[in-house]
Amino acid sequence: MKTSQIFATLALAAATLPALAKGVIVNQAITETAVLAAQQGWCKALVDISSIGAKSGQPAAKALAEKVIDAAYAYQMGAVLFKPTLTVNPQTFRTTRAGALAYFVGGDPAFPKDKGFALKNWTQCAVDNAAVFIAGDSATTMGKVNITGKDGKVTTVDKTWKFVKDDAGKLRIAVHHSSLEYAAQ
Amino acid sequence: MKTSQIFATLALAAATLPALAKGVIVNQAITETAVLAAQQGWCKALVDISSIGAKSGQPAAKALAEKVIDAAYAYQMGAVLFKPTLTVNPQTFRTTRAGALAYFVGGDPAFPKDKGFALKNWTQCAVDNAAVFIAGDSATTMGKVNITGKDGKVTTVDKTWKFVKDDAGKLRIAVHHSSLEYAAQ
Amino acid sequence: MKTSQIFATLALAAATLPALAKGVIVNQAITETAVLAAQQGWCKALVDISSIGAKSGQPAAKALAEKVIDAAYAYQMGAVLFKPTLTVNPQTFRTTRAGALAYFVGGDPAFPKDKGFALKNWTQCAVDNAAVFIAGDSATTMGKVNITGKDGKVTTVDKTWKFVKDDAGKLRIAVHHSSLEYAAQ
Amino acid sequence: MKTSQIFATLALAAATLPALAKGVIVNQAITETAVLAAQQGWCKALVDISSIGAKSGQPAAKALAEKVIDAAYAYQMGAVLFKPTLTVNPQTFRTTRAGALAYFVGGDPAFPKDKGFALKNWTQCAVDNAAVFIAGDSATTMGKVNITGKDGKVTTVDKTWKFVKDDAGKLRIAVHHSSLEYAAQ
Repeated sequence: MKTSQIFATLALAAATLPALAKGVIVNQAITETAVLAAQQGWCKALVDISSIGAKSGQPAAKALAEKVIDAAYAYQMGAVLFKPTLTVNPQTFRTTRAGALAYFVGGDPAFPKDKGFALKNWTQCAVDNAAVFIAGDSATTMGKVNITGKDGKVTTVDKTWKFVKDDAGKLRIAVHHSSLEYAAQ
Repeated sequence: MKTSQIFATLALAAATLPALAKGVIVNQAITETAVLAAQQGWCKALVDISSIGAKSGQPAAKALAEKVIDAAYAYQMGAVLFKPTLTVNPQTFRTTRAGALAYFVGGDPAFPKDKGFALKNWTQCAVDNAAVFIAGDSATTMGKVNITGKDGKVTTVDKTWKFVKDDAGKLRIAVHHSSLEYAAQ
Repeated sequence: MKTSQIFATLALAAATLPALAKGVIVNQAITETAVLAAQQGWCKALVDISSIGAKSGQPAAKALAEKVIDAAYAYQMGAVLFKPTLTVNPQTFRTTRAGALAYFVGGDPAFPKDKGFALKNWTQCAVDNAAVFIAGDSATTMGKVNITGKDGKVTTVDKTWKFVKDDAGKLRIAVHHSSLEYAAQ
Repeated sequence: MKTSQIFATLALAAATLPALAKGVIVNQAITETAVLAAQQGWCKALVDISSIGAKSGQPAAKALAEKVIDAAYAYQMGAVLFKPTLTVNPQTFRTTRAGALAYFVGGDPAFPKDKGFALKNWTQCAVDNAAVFIAGDSATTMGKVNITGKDGKVTTVDKTWKFVKDDAGKLRIAVHHSSLEYAAQ
């Protein structure tokens, strides 16, 4: 029997399988749907923080941003590899929760250049994936994210996210690299 | 906004998502269907080796067993943790391809106690999973496997398999622990 | 430049590297030392439960066993694929915490055949690995475990463990298949 | 016995362990040393392609670039999530081998804006990691990469790499996001 035949018979076996196993099934594999939902969750959170900041001020925005960071990022796993869009040396990278919070809502003297990216009155946020790579226990996406300001102007960023599952099964951002599009000269 | 509300809005966002992303999608996550197919493939291979052995002799069975091992086990990754059902000390564990081959079809003087498990005229093989745990990039199953001999007698073994994906995306057995049921006294 | 030369120059580059990176380093890779420690931890826990049971009775043994299960197994991740040494159909597999606890210390009417494996006055437990396979984020071991009773008699079992890291970085048993050695006839 | 005591005894057990297991050991966990070597390999390859291009022309540079891409990237796994430093819409992302090759050495009419990043006479390349996160079976780095041109001018980019191991145990780049530093206004 040739290898191709072995595979043919395996495929045949598969074709006649019951669709699902009996017994206890635990499936931790990350799904495309879950990845897209996590991206949408990030977008929605950005707009929500902007809204609450415009309506109720920075402290309210900060309180929400803390909840979002704690729910959506993986800082509790040791570090997040986070390169926000607008940070500059020597504070380009925000591997700590404090650095992420300062980036989103400002107001932290330890990060004096941060004005609060999420306080820029964003009204919409849309993800346009170039690629989604699900490795099984992690998933990475790369693409454009288009963020609309109050004046209707759209800012486009190139964004990479790597999501991992925590013990509770929730996707968290472990890597986040965002950059303005290259302006060819 | 409370954390529960954040999740509610995330869930809402998810509910209105497009079902699938655009762009390049690579999904290496192991599926339940693929796991069940791999188990069936093992069962079918066992019966096939038995059949060809009965019809054409040990050399033909050995040739098929080599193809099966090369296609279904992960020896090329360095080792397989294989505890076959009927092996004894000091050759209980078969971490090498040669040890697996000897177990299935015998005839290797380096493994003098091996008579060839796959040469026992098995006619049927059925998997009854107690649990399937898909970690995403690997999957482990545990349950009963019932193997029927030519005389209709069924041998039941307790079996654990861990499957991993190779670079080509095919599931391979990386761990295989099989044991006769405990005979309570 | 040939591929072999590329690798030679890569190797040269590696040889002149600083030994360690600057910056934040998070290394979740499972180490051989951690795997061996987790195995020893299981052995020690078994003997400890036996000791406390002999000295203080089943309730004390049960209380310790609960702590051990909660600290060393991964039931909180959804299920553990656990085939204990001495269980029989239809309760061979113990995918729940309750099933594991009953196996170790008995006393659960839902598992009437369980007398408490850890109450058998074990005085020593030693692991003799045939193979350790560290996949990076999980590790599987296979080998003999020799358990000594109060009378000095040694029981040898064939044992497979798969360990995973939880969010806190601690190894937990996700798969555990134990079986008496095959008694060749 | 309290949980803290259990851990103390586990730690004690670990302290008295033999340093290494007997038996077959396969350790696929990614090491910090391997990650740093892979980064250095990328830097060295960039300078090598530049050198050979300056000395022998684009075809020679292209031939080397193909070898580098095939050896160092993971295109054979389905796609690489690659956002090079200087690409523009609608060809920002290079998920295919052809797109990566065009970026490095140009000359592909399908990517008309690519002049060949590796042909810019780079003479040095140095990595300054902000963070290295080793998940076990993958590793992600984020930091500055400083590339020196023939005129001594240094270009600094913010770079994220995710490395995975292939079946042969070699690290490959699965994700690569590179961007010029944000020029604050």
